Amino acid sequence: MRGMTAPGTVRPGGRTARTAEAVFAAVIAELSTRAYADISVESIAARAGVHKTTVYRRWGSKAEIIRQALVSAALARIQVPDTGSVDTDLRMLARAVQAVISVPEGAAISRGLIIGATSSPEIAALMDQYWAARLDAISVIVDRAIGRGELPVGTDPEAFMRAMAAPLFYQLLVVRAPVTERDADLAAAATLTAARTGLFAQ
Amino acid sequence: MRGMTAPGTVRPGGRTARTAEAVFAAVIAELSTRAYADISVESIAARAGVHKTTVYRRWGSKAEIIRQALVSAALARIQVPDTGSVDTDLRMLARAVQAVISVPEGAAISRGLIIGATSSPEIAALMDQYWAARLDAISVIVDRAIGRGELPVGTDPEAFMRAMAAPLFYQLLVVRAPVTERDADLAAAATLTAARTGLFAQ
Repeated sequence: MRGMTAPGTVRPGGRTARTAEAVFAAVIAELSTRAYADISVESIAARAGVHKTTVYRRWGSKAEIIRQALVSAALARIQVPDTGSVDTDLRMLARAVQAVISVPEGAAISRGLIIGATSSPEIAALMDQYWAARLDAISVIVDRAIGRGELPVGTDPEAFMRAMAAPLFYQLLVVRAPVTERDADLAAAATLTAARTGLFAQ
Repeated sequence: MRGMTAPGTVRPGGRTARTAEAVFAAVIAELSTRAYADISVESIAARAGVHKTTVYRRWGSKAEIIRQALVSAALARIQVPDTGSVDTDLRMLARAVQAVISVPEGAAISRGLIIGATSSPEIAALMDQYWAARLDAISVIVDRAIGRGELPVGTDPEAFMRAMAAPLFYQLLVVRAPVTERDADLAAAATLTAARTGLFAQ
């Protein structure tokens, strides 16, 4: 089979896919235990049990590996709910964010990357891509809700996402207190209440 | 007059008050230009044009000077509005927060202290005191609004403050984009809409 797929192509279950899984898991482990500046292609490769030349050949740079690992984690961990009700969709999404940032590993990664982005252009670019992927997911929920007549036409997905996510990250970064399921439910409910009045409509 | 006031007592307009003003202004300038760890009693004293022994004698430690400077800045900059309407009070408060964090100096200080608090117990303690002072201010607004029948009895000042402030700090720290007056107005309006339905009532 070697040579039959383009370099970097992921065949589910294949060796390339298994390598990516191991490397992405190593990235997450590295991000949760050390500062961005201290992470290297070598440290990721060593943790993943993969030769560093394999990692360099496939991803090229530390920034690119981390970018792909984050996008992969974002897609895998934060599913886009489609329950037929925007109330349930948003509550599930808020609970998914809360589930990530309320465990030590997720809290450390989120904190490290958000803080890192304020001083490193490289992490800032990574995070911008990550939030763009999150925004795409929210847009789907908002569009469906508008289609069902649950939210006003023109509701801005960005304002909607900010209203939902901000109280959770405020709790994590500013208050430095546990982010609870109740916090998630309250953020979702407050967002919907404001959205229904047309406050977030452009 | 020397010896007639207790050490550290501030007589408005007196030399003690002028020293405090110069030292607090130096603290804010230091906080906006360098990392917390790089600030010292010496660097504050030098910038304020005051002898370091004067600073040590009066405040004792770097943490205590910074704590007092922040509390003083919080009280001076973020006035507690009392317009007779909770809508106007909250919009003014959100605009005051926005005014602080939308200028480079205020943004740098806020970012530096919030980020610093996630790794330094000393800064964390400072920030806890700072947020407690802010919460007291919000509680006054909420209590008056309940008294006028504008908000449900039992409205939690902490949830109310978080809903108002979180989108502004999310914009500063997570999105890393300018925080506009429109952001402030939207945060205030969304908070009030949610609060009026009783979502923040305990």
